[in-house]
Amino acid sequence: MVLVVRGELRLTTGKVAAQVAHGAVMLARRIERESPARFADWWKNGQRKIVLEASTLSEMEELERSARARRIPTVWVEDAGLTEVPPGTRTCLALGPAQDFEIDPVTGGLPLL
Amino acid sequence: MVLVVRGELRLTTGKVAAQVAHGAVMLARRIERESPARFADWWKNGQRKIVLEASTLSEMEELERSARARRIPTVWVEDAGLTEVPPGTRTCLALGPAQDFEIDPVTGGLPLL
Repeated sequence: MVLVVRGELRLTTGKVAAQVAHGAVMLARRIERESPARFADWWKNGQRKIVLEASTLSEMEELERSARARRIPTVWVEDAGLTEVPPGTRTCLALGPAQDFEIDPVTGGLPLL
Repeated sequence: MVLVVRGELRLTTGKVAAQVAHGAVMLARRIERESPARFADWWKNGQRKIVLEASTLSEMEELERSARARRIPTVWVEDAGLTEVPPGTRTCLALGPAQDFEIDPVTGGLPLL
């Protein structure tokens, strides 16, 4: 599973962690229902999570299009906007879980956060 | 749900986010199975996640004892230790989900991360 954080928002560490956790829980729950084999494979291999950073929302939208074209599941995290950003702001894109060869062409160029 | 990060480890932002996400996924999954009503209540109220910081492992162990005494679910995150810390290092304690009045006596004194 890859979690891409929107760098331009300059969120605090705690806020970043909460957004990434929202994305991970939503995506894990969806995959467990929709693709049990994919979920089981990910779970037994240590529930791997990679946190990366993209600069802008448009960069993240391009990642989502690229993932969809490869049939990799995606989930957007939108913040309720009670603290650091306006309501509905997209803060994180969760993708996968997928094998490295599937997801590297999508997110392989992004830096670790 | 409250996620308590172990401050003394001085993890990077990406590492903190991954540990918090591990804790959130493990705890959410367990609660969905063991306490469906508690899970449903948390889910429909926005899956709230609060990320706090404790200084030391012994402080976190005391939090866990206090939570258990109040029948609040807890999960430890232990890192596989491939990058920043030795294998098996406890990096995060996930607690809840719970009502504020239940969990505030346990974690109310900790700073936001």
